[in-house]
Amino acid sequence: MAKIRLGMVGGGKDAFIGAVHRIAARIDGQFDLVAGALSSTAEKSRDSGLALGLAADRCYGSFDEMAAAEAARPDGIEAVAIVTPNHVHAAAAKAFLARGIHVICDKPLTATLDQAADLAEAIGASKALFILTHNYTGYPMIRQARDMVASGQLGTIRVVQVEYPQDWLTEASEASGSKQAEWRTDPERSGAGGSTGDIGTHAHNLACFVTGLKVEKLAADLQSFVPGRRVDDNGHVLLRFEGGARGMLWCSQVAPGNENALRLRVYGEKGGLEWAQEDPNYLWFTPFGQPKRLLTRGGSGANPAAAAVSRTPGGHPEGYLEGFANIYAGAAEAIRAAQAGGRSAALDVLPGLEAGLQGMRFVDACVRSSRQDAAWVAL
Amino acid sequence: MAKIRLGMVGGGKDAFIGAVHRIAARIDGQFDLVAGALSSTAEKSRDSGLALGLAADRCYGSFDEMAAAEAARPDGIEAVAIVTPNHVHAAAAKAFLARGIHVICDKPLTATLDQAADLAEAIGASKALFILTHNYTGYPMIRQARDMVASGQLGTIRVVQVEYPQDWLTEASEASGSKQAEWRTDPERSGAGGSTGDIGTHAHNLACFVTGLKVEKLAADLQSFVPGRRVDDNGHVLLRFEGGARGMLWCSQVAPGNENALRLRVYGEKGGLEWAQEDPNYLWFTPFGQPKRLLTRGGSGANPAAAAVSRTPGGHPEGYLEGFANIYAGAAEAIRAAQAGGRSAALDVLPGLEAGLQGMRFVDACVRSSRQDAAWVAL
Amino acid sequence: MAKIRLGMVGGGKDAFIGAVHRIAARIDGQFDLVAGALSSTAEKSRDSGLALGLAADRCYGSFDEMAAAEAARPDGIEAVAIVTPNHVHAAAAKAFLARGIHVICDKPLTATLDQAADLAEAIGASKALFILTHNYTGYPMIRQARDMVASGQLGTIRVVQVEYPQDWLTEASEASGSKQAEWRTDPERSGAGGSTGDIGTHAHNLACFVTGLKVEKLAADLQSFVPGRRVDDNGHVLLRFEGGARGMLWCSQVAPGNENALRLRVYGEKGGLEWAQEDPNYLWFTPFGQPKRLLTRGGSGANPAAAAVSRTPGGHPEGYLEGFANIYAGAAEAIRAAQAGGRSAALDVLPGLEAGLQGMRFVDACVRSSRQDAAWVAL
Amino acid sequence: MAKIRLGMVGGGKDAFIGAVHRIAARIDGQFDLVAGALSSTAEKSRDSGLALGLAADRCYGSFDEMAAAEAARPDGIEAVAIVTPNHVHAAAAKAFLARGIHVICDKPLTATLDQAADLAEAIGASKALFILTHNYTGYPMIRQARDMVASGQLGTIRVVQVEYPQDWLTEASEASGSKQAEWRTDPERSGAGGSTGDIGTHAHNLACFVTGLKVEKLAADLQSFVPGRRVDDNGHVLLRFEGGARGMLWCSQVAPGNENALRLRVYGEKGGLEWAQEDPNYLWFTPFGQPKRLLTRGGSGANPAAAAVSRTPGGHPEGYLEGFANIYAGAAEAIRAAQAGGRSAALDVLPGLEAGLQGMRFVDACVRSSRQDAAWVAL
Repeated sequence: MAKIRLGMVGGGKDAFIGAVHRIAARIDGQFDLVAGALSSTAEKSRDSGLALGLAADRCYGSFDEMAAAEAARPDGIEAVAIVTPNHVHAAAAKAFLARGIHVICDKPLTATLDQAADLAEAIGASKALFILTHNYTGYPMIRQARDMVASGQLGTIRVVQVEYPQDWLTEASEASGSKQAEWRTDPERSGAGGSTGDIGTHAHNLACFVTGLKVEKLAADLQSFVPGRRVDDNGHVLLRFEGGARGMLWCSQVAPGNENALRLRVYGEKGGLEWAQEDPNYLWFTPFGQPKRLLTRGGSGANPAAAAVSRTPGGHPEGYLEGFANIYAGAAEAIRAAQAGGRSAALDVLPGLEAGLQGMRFVDACVRSSRQDAAWVAL
Repeated sequence: MAKIRLGMVGGGKDAFIGAVHRIAARIDGQFDLVAGALSSTAEKSRDSGLALGLAADRCYGSFDEMAAAEAARPDGIEAVAIVTPNHVHAAAAKAFLARGIHVICDKPLTATLDQAADLAEAIGASKALFILTHNYTGYPMIRQARDMVASGQLGTIRVVQVEYPQDWLTEASEASGSKQAEWRTDPERSGAGGSTGDIGTHAHNLACFVTGLKVEKLAADLQSFVPGRRVDDNGHVLLRFEGGARGMLWCSQVAPGNENALRLRVYGEKGGLEWAQEDPNYLWFTPFGQPKRLLTRGGSGANPAAAAVSRTPGGHPEGYLEGFANIYAGAAEAIRAAQAGGRSAALDVLPGLEAGLQGMRFVDACVRSSRQDAAWVAL
Repeated sequence: MAKIRLGMVGGGKDAFIGAVHRIAARIDGQFDLVAGALSSTAEKSRDSGLALGLAADRCYGSFDEMAAAEAARPDGIEAVAIVTPNHVHAAAAKAFLARGIHVICDKPLTATLDQAADLAEAIGASKALFILTHNYTGYPMIRQARDMVASGQLGTIRVVQVEYPQDWLTEASEASGSKQAEWRTDPERSGAGGSTGDIGTHAHNLACFVTGLKVEKLAADLQSFVPGRRVDDNGHVLLRFEGGARGMLWCSQVAPGNENALRLRVYGEKGGLEWAQEDPNYLWFTPFGQPKRLLTRGGSGANPAAAAVSRTPGGHPEGYLEGFANIYAGAAEAIRAAQAGGRSAALDVLPGLEAGLQGMRFVDACVRSSRQDAAWVAL
Repeated sequence: MAKIRLGMVGGGKDAFIGAVHRIAARIDGQFDLVAGALSSTAEKSRDSGLALGLAADRCYGSFDEMAAAEAARPDGIEAVAIVTPNHVHAAAAKAFLARGIHVICDKPLTATLDQAADLAEAIGASKALFILTHNYTGYPMIRQARDMVASGQLGTIRVVQVEYPQDWLTEASEASGSKQAEWRTDPERSGAGGSTGDIGTHAHNLACFVTGLKVEKLAADLQSFVPGRRVDDNGHVLLRFEGGARGMLWCSQVAPGNENALRLRVYGEKGGLEWAQEDPNYLWFTPFGQPKRLLTRGGSGANPAAAAVSRTPGGHPEGYLEGFANIYAGAAEAIRAAQAGGRSAALDVLPGLEAGLQGMRFVDACVRSSRQDAAWVAL
């Protein structure tokens, strides 16, 4: 099967997430990166592109230029990965969607709700697919957890505890030259939410993905602990889900000792589940009144939902890149189906516009609630 | 040194916590249980007392009778442990305080704020000591954590995450004959708070004990998930501490897979600490920017505060009973000092009236806030 | 029920294990320490005894004196705990056994096989009980593991991996004044085995206790890594059990990062068990082909063998002292039965002469094998 | 930079390790798979090749045919991955080495020592590189551990404990149609060692790789627990290293509850290291007398050796495939250097002929020793 021709916007030298997307696209051999507008200037973009083995004439100075040129080539890109800071997502995506090029876009959807609405319209008007890389939903044991909840193994869900602490912004690194810290703490480029937008959206998405529930209302108490910081670096959020489940969400970038400690716990009438991103091959399951069981990816307790996205047997740990690659694998499947005029069932679990909008509403609600002293606000 | 003569109110057959108090009192050989009003009827009380080796004439039918009789004996009890349901605490304690008998009382302080105020007055009027068994403060690594915070090893505290999930009330066991479940879910005997009163108070106390901070305001969302339950069985609480730290408290008795999972995490400008009650010999410490360190009770990282309450070397695990015994050991020291007309430094770390009142205010605030849809209320 | 009157030989000031025995004897309120020959001189013995609240006339200068005097008193001791260095065990035990006083003796049985034979004869000639404190067999989850193996839940046992690493002798602390290190590395007082005698015997005992198997042959490679050390400080041992199971035993006192890391893993045709002394409330059980289950002391997976020796519910961790106390609780039960002319079933799980002899043969076999360059030798 | 043209021998449908090699080769975009002799018949080989996107004329019926044809093409393969059962390694490798095509070969080196000698000669006579995929040496924290030992952070090494338990051969799955089980338990295809050859070689290699030590002698007790099994399924091995360090190696495929539990612990005069393959992002380091530290891949404690082979920041777990890919990344670097007439420093850490021979000698020594009742034999 021919590989899908892929372009990339953003992800030049020193960008962490661009490299991740490229590896994720490569792992299963489904995509071939052939074009890029990798940096904000034509020169840098060309340097980055050549270093990645792109042809010189397919290293573009801007996403507009790239969209126009690639759409005109018979061997032009079929899909594009957008891995820029958040405020560029909408404009870039629109350029490709308008030309029927499938979009794989980093989260959160956009920097503002206005941009999100704008993008939503463009997605609606295009035949191309829009896929959002809420990559943590790609972990096999998360797919398993979702399936277990859906099939009733936990009974009605009562309590959802989700948290995402990090520590890399404990000090004012945005003031001392960290490029990553700089744009993520700049409300113009990142949006009104700091930790809420950067990682809270992942936590919110994961809780909803696994439980199949939507957050109805929330009450948020956001803080900027580091002096001079312009966005929140810690957020405490009470959650009320449709149907009566309750939850808590904590996101923080100032919690020393936490590297990337996304963690989800779900409790229902009949049992509980616990999962930690840093040890993603494990899922703890307790049927009420019985001993806790350690379900392992690829192991005897793995279900078909997990097996479908596993590449190695139990005990051969998979990680972040494989989870990310599962989003790309799903995208490849969906794109091939779309090209054949059909619709892939992969879209049922792939995050897209709807997940993106919910994420934007989550951040917006957090900020609104916090400004009202943690009053309840609807999403 | 002669043992301190101890009496007990409550704690007859089948009562879990009475047996715990007796073991805790015995471990260090500082107390001698010589009298009891162990059950609510004279006959049961006598049966329980004889089974414990008490003299028949010191098995009493009521705490009043016991207080009067023991105070009149030359070899009467010097201290009493009160381990009844919450609504009895105040009346029982008053009977002994009035006679100068030291009181060691189970938490929470009382069932209602009115009772608490009443008891506070009695404590103020007595020369006898009043010690509250917030037993989790007796764990060596908790003493160490408190000391580390106080000495500035974490810098200014920013975030406090405390949680106390259990699962034993996942089903309506109060309706099927569980005596423990019955009184704990009865607001008359337990107070207005269910999980908040029973275990939330421990979580709140532990967070304050370790950080040295007081909760200024809270916003609570309490639930009674089990149909027919009359008190909360799950509580989500946002915390604002004096001085600007923020936190979250979660208590639950309907979280399958959690036996007694009290857990505290404290993050400051300079580092973070993590501790879990079910693995109490470990304390994780991360100085920001350095690898996480596993401090162990009795190990090379243990500080004097931990060492002072450790009985075995590192790798020889101590547990719940030893932690509880540390409260009794402190009480013994304080009682002996008081008998000698002095004041023991043990009182600096022992929970007493003030901790008890804070706990009562915590529950009251949770209930008030939750009735106002999780509005902020001051403690 | 009246407490059993207990004496102690050894265990004066600064002795770690004497204090442990005293706490273990106290936890359940079954023993009353009333006499002691706590140190090697009359004066020190008296100082230690008075500090523990003994009457001055029951602080003895030697075990012989104590045995004679106590046997002559109407209120003399009914049992004695022997907690001296190993080379004293036999002589001390004989003095009490000869007078019908029950003996609770620290392990290993003696320093030499000759002493062991001598003691065995004395035990055979006495009506008094002889109990050896292989305390790790007292842990509830070890009792559970033994029961699970015996009831066939693992099928025929194939592989037994047991290890006991520590790090406290990594440097030559016997040369720098550590009293504990001094006698334990002195072959005169400790016996020919260093780490093999001190902790290897515990590992060997635990493996046999849980599996119900005896070691038939072993091949041992012992080392003294620390220059100048006179006994082994690390031992690697291949094990062949009666019936065909095979195993490995590792004991070390020079493994930095290991405090007291006794660990047992047992694998049979149908399943596997894993247990670690430093986290003793957990037992991992994997029925072949199913997910691993975390059985917890007091939890839903606990069996009657565990429940019988548990004092607190699940999630309220018990530790080393409680495990030790279970040996004393069993001893109390057995002594009371013996006093009543009967035999307690507690003796079925209590270690005694036979376990002690096996331990002595284990050390002897290790030393013999190692001297023959790790040749197989029979026990 | 142009990708290196890669061929593959073995790895057709249903073969686990072939897929792993392909992903590993793809992750960094350094190789392009363009030819294959993927199965033992021309037809199957063609089917497998087409499914992988190979051109029809580069799907070969045998490795001989492939070696000849590819060597004759101007765009022929530059390197070949050999992923067949062990007994084919030597013959296949020789066919490519003879034509100057670089070989990346799965471990163990060959099925027999004779084949190994034969292959060694061919490697010596060729200018092409020979790289052996002892993939566990590719883990970042293993590279870090090796570096820490080499730089003296542990002092002189004393004790090495390595183990590799699995459970997938607990029952006689070779008799019930498992293709993987079948060839691995057939001495003709696998070699004289069963678990020792399949996984013991990994354990042995890892211990030597990290410590920089060679095994001088060993004493092995091998078992075939499953009735009818023709090779060992469990091995217990005592190790003596050059220079005086001692160790134990345990490999098993009949230990229920172990998926792929390779684990290494190294103890020296100054500190200890512990690592587990199933949680590969963590490395425990204890400087003697200090608290244990958790070093994490990408975290604050990671050293340059680890960083050089990490693709994601701390807390974003990497796994088995990334570790495997690090062998391929090193191979790519070495091949490019060789093509430019130089020698890459990557070869300093890449396993090759020498590691392969040591592995063969390890298995041979295990079998010889076990036949002599676990006598010591030299490697």
